[in-house]
Amino acid sequence: MIPPFEIGPVRRERSSRLQALIDAKTKPLGALGLLESLALKIGLILRTDSPSLRAPHILVFAGDHGIATEGVSAYPQEVTQQMVLNFLQGGAAINVFARQHGIGLKIVDAGVKGVLPPSEGLVAARIADGTSSSLRKPAMTTEQCGRALARGAQLVSDLHGNGCNVIGFGEMGIGNTSAAALIMSRLCRIPLEICVGRGAGLDEDGLRKKRAILKQASQRVPPDQTPLSVLEQFGGFEIAMMCGAMLKAAECAMVVLVDGFIATAAVLVADALFQNFRDYLVFTHLSAEPGHYRMLEHLDASPLLHLDMRLGEGTGCALAYPLLQSAVRFLNEMATFDSANVSTRTR
Amino acid sequence: MIPPFEIGPVRRERSSRLQALIDAKTKPLGALGLLESLALKIGLILRTDSPSLRAPHILVFAGDHGIATEGVSAYPQEVTQQMVLNFLQGGAAINVFARQHGIGLKIVDAGVKGVLPPSEGLVAARIADGTSSSLRKPAMTTEQCGRALARGAQLVSDLHGNGCNVIGFGEMGIGNTSAAALIMSRLCRIPLEICVGRGAGLDEDGLRKKRAILKQASQRVPPDQTPLSVLEQFGGFEIAMMCGAMLKAAECAMVVLVDGFIATAAVLVADALFQNFRDYLVFTHLSAEPGHYRMLEHLDASPLLHLDMRLGEGTGCALAYPLLQSAVRFLNEMATFDSANVSTRTR
Repeated sequence: MIPPFEIGPVRRERSSRLQALIDAKTKPLGALGLLESLALKIGLILRTDSPSLRAPHILVFAGDHGIATEGVSAYPQEVTQQMVLNFLQGGAAINVFARQHGIGLKIVDAGVKGVLPPSEGLVAARIADGTSSSLRKPAMTTEQCGRALARGAQLVSDLHGNGCNVIGFGEMGIGNTSAAALIMSRLCRIPLEICVGRGAGLDEDGLRKKRAILKQASQRVPPDQTPLSVLEQFGGFEIAMMCGAMLKAAECAMVVLVDGFIATAAVLVADALFQNFRDYLVFTHLSAEPGHYRMLEHLDASPLLHLDMRLGEGTGCALAYPLLQSAVRFLNEMATFDSANVSTRTR
Repeated sequence: MIPPFEIGPVRRERSSRLQALIDAKTKPLGALGLLESLALKIGLILRTDSPSLRAPHILVFAGDHGIATEGVSAYPQEVTQQMVLNFLQGGAAINVFARQHGIGLKIVDAGVKGVLPPSEGLVAARIADGTSSSLRKPAMTTEQCGRALARGAQLVSDLHGNGCNVIGFGEMGIGNTSAAALIMSRLCRIPLEICVGRGAGLDEDGLRKKRAILKQASQRVPPDQTPLSVLEQFGGFEIAMMCGAMLKAAECAMVVLVDGFIATAAVLVADALFQNFRDYLVFTHLSAEPGHYRMLEHLDASPLLHLDMRLGEGTGCALAYPLLQSAVRFLNEMATFDSANVSTRTR
């Protein structure tokens, strides 16, 4: 069953008008490079020639993974919960960067193992006490997956109702590069060993072990699964919830900021389900996790930043946000050749 | 004669302390990628473990080029002056991006052809009514070059006296990719045709003509010139003034933001003169002007942004500035594994 979203295409009729506005600005044609295509994209998504970004938010979904207990990660599983507490105290990288740029931040418990005390910044949305190990059985049931998609969508719906039109998504979950690699291999049809990387920093031995375990997990599941079944078999609650959140954001014609390897795995599922979904995405950075490059290639995406980062948490979204503001500002604020009396090209 | 600057090395003894601080933050080792090396560099330049960026400024140097009258540019020469007026009215890209990030902006008339009315935002520092055509004779005299270097240094000195510790440099000058290509070819010892690109947007014919003219200009001057003589023979007043400004900023231990192809030509001269100069530079972006990649390679530099831009004006400096702030903020504000009670790696 396809989840119930209605995602229309952006109106390409607006493209030529937006492009003419961009070309009239006092700069050589195309001289602002990717900022120009970004301004065009934002104008198309927000359906206006003079866009403004409102009430930006980042949702960080946290969840635990059964596969983490099989020895695929450089860090112990309790780090998921510890990092959630760090987020709530404002000490993580995403807190710093979101504060810097005035981006609202919500931490969502999508299924962290163990008890998290209620807290003002925390959205309680746990599906279960971590997923099952996909080495042995599906990571989640169909019912759990549907619930995660719906809960993610609901969160975005609420923010949209409060005026938010640009949203990024981050994640925290020990073991989630394993889940993302398994999803990627199925949906991009790329051999698993190419999809598996060092995650948070495995050594050579650790990487070998991770590859072997994930190969076994993959072999458990027959080929040719639907995108949703791939998500259920290998995903995490944070990935499923992010997928639902992204789909709802596209349905609401919001600008969707895509972070790194894990977030792009959620994009792969949503993209396989809805043909117009891709129109609403801004890929914020290229992760150092090697599979990310191939995911972006599969999606025909040009990321904004190349900073060799591999942190997740939505940090790429936060760091790229000023570039979105720059794109909008140059479109709204720059003079034109006419208005500034500047001569145009002679050759 | 070497211009009178005293540029000391940064103190590498501080490196290991800074690196330990960075590594203690709640993120996998190295997970913030280039932001981590940026934080380290800023700490070294500003000589502190808790840096703060103060009173950021961008100086935009404008100058005209005799070589522009030989048919090397897609735009007529009067565009230099017209764009200066656009800067003063706040309508150019650099105005928009500097406003966005609270960066002080000064426009410097280093030698624009024609009369510019006095204006509050304009620094009158003109060396002459444009340079001579380097196709026929040296672009400037030794005296003019020395004056331009000194004037650039003076401007930075004044800003530093007012508390500025981070400064970027931009330029405007029809014909200045020609000057930069000629300087690059000599100082990087790279064949001229590789150094010459389309500038503001020449077509195929225009590019062929530009290559032929610059080849002639280069052949006028014997090989093995000193760096300063290369600057006099081929440079522009804006490039020479920027070179003096950058050297003074390094002498004052300020963070120096390097923009694109023209600004990096000024860096090449300064770098050839002073061995420690490079320690103070942050390369803000990779320009789409193809020679820029080779310049950066020569300088062993990793630029922060890859946005396929080719505008100059210091726009790369302005757009990258939030990344410098992010680097400083994560160093100052992020929790450590200890302070946040997060477990460290197990393998």
